[in-house]
Amino acid sequence: MKTLEFKPDPADSSPLYLQLAQLLSQAIRDGRYQVDEALPSERTLSESLNVSRVTARKAIDQLVEQGLIVRRRGSGNYIAPRLEQPLSRLTSFSEELHQRGYTPSSRWLERGITASVPEEQLSLGLSPGTRVARLERLRLADDVVMAYEVSVIPQSALPDPEAVEGSLYEYLARSGHAPVRALQHIRALNAHAKLADLLEVPTGQAVLFITRIGYLESGQAVELTHSYCRSDYYDFVAEMRREG
Amino acid sequence: MKTLEFKPDPADSSPLYLQLAQLLSQAIRDGRYQVDEALPSERTLSESLNVSRVTARKAIDQLVEQGLIVRRRGSGNYIAPRLEQPLSRLTSFSEELHQRGYTPSSRWLERGITASVPEEQLSLGLSPGTRVARLERLRLADDVVMAYEVSVIPQSALPDPEAVEGSLYEYLARSGHAPVRALQHIRALNAHAKLADLLEVPTGQAVLFITRIGYLESGQAVELTHSYCRSDYYDFVAEMRREG
Repeated sequence: MKTLEFKPDPADSSPLYLQLAQLLSQAIRDGRYQVDEALPSERTLSESLNVSRVTARKAIDQLVEQGLIVRRRGSGNYIAPRLEQPLSRLTSFSEELHQRGYTPSSRWLERGITASVPEEQLSLGLSPGTRVARLERLRLADDVVMAYEVSVIPQSALPDPEAVEGSLYEYLARSGHAPVRALQHIRALNAHAKLADLLEVPTGQAVLFITRIGYLESGQAVELTHSYCRSDYYDFVAEMRREG
Repeated sequence: MKTLEFKPDPADSSPLYLQLAQLLSQAIRDGRYQVDEALPSERTLSESLNVSRVTARKAIDQLVEQGLIVRRRGSGNYIAPRLEQPLSRLTSFSEELHQRGYTPSSRWLERGITASVPEEQLSLGLSPGTRVARLERLRLADDVVMAYEVSVIPQSALPDPEAVEGSLYEYLARSGHAPVRALQHIRALNAHAKLADLLEVPTGQAVLFITRIGYLESGQAVELTHSYCRSDYYDFVAEMRREG
């Protein structure tokens, strides 16, 4: 176990458990623990840092509430992956994770050419009957499932979906079909049974539902992606400014 | 009832109900119906537009799925308010609604000076013990509850919260305390019983949970707002661009 030291600040009037939660949260953000690594137990924390079990438990409760750690029944507290995704910069899931020191990966559920449905034709400006590449996969950070994603790309821009391995954007860039601009719509929905199963959450759990349409420089829509993101792992951040 | 005309396009290969859904959706977006106004019933639609009941029902199903209309048990289908909120421009709820032709209003639940809690002190950079103005209210569009919102402002910036009537930003602007920049974090959560009651949704319903910290020109944090937004009425939109 990494050694942490806890010296309560006598000048600080906030409760001891909050001071401890702050220390632990800083240690997690500093990367002292790896994603999916178990946090020391309440007992270990209380003994090594010389605080009561109640203080240790309340500090951990605080971190769970902040989404920094997740409780797994019967096996303790684990460091949660946390993907802070800016809402102004168009980056791919793989890039974002790399930048944050995680290892991104995909578990493929479908990768092929299929018929398009009316919603896809409408969003991508396709005539009825156009065939599309359909990429359906789970997105993982250090082996933890963070999102379920379905991307639809006109067949003309992605004739060989089987060839996409990791980053779709990287692959599209090679043939000059990477979006340079995207519009994202953000909603919340209750996970139905199949989705809950894929995301490893209870049925009914609130998840973030993102619809993205990506555009080429020419203004042509080239990507329609629906993402279902675990809200405990994602943190969408927008910076807003006053105009005028 | 407003007269709508439906002329199916024989050259269009998409199913009749989708063509009808498109006509109705355009009519709603054009403002032919008022928020919270009942849509003509399936029977009226089918008779006046000369389509089968099944087609009318499937078209309405489509609009419900798109969030354009809401079903109320026993009383029919109503036009849903829809607030498309850009995630880059810092505007107030009141401004956004006005721009879209809705009448914004607030139902106050609390408005006063209270003690601050640790999270508020941390977010606003306040010393423990600092008192804050707390504004707790339901936000309505044309009398439909869209969100529940709690704003916390340092007492120094808002000594008299009772005086805030409509727009908080407008009020703050008068004393030179309106935020010019804000950071927004977007998550999804399941409404607990009290929240569900306030938002008039079933307990457990997925809602959007927005945390906003607003800053003055000086960089000083002046606003911490937690908003719980009905996902069926809100549409957060972000435009993303590729950098470099």
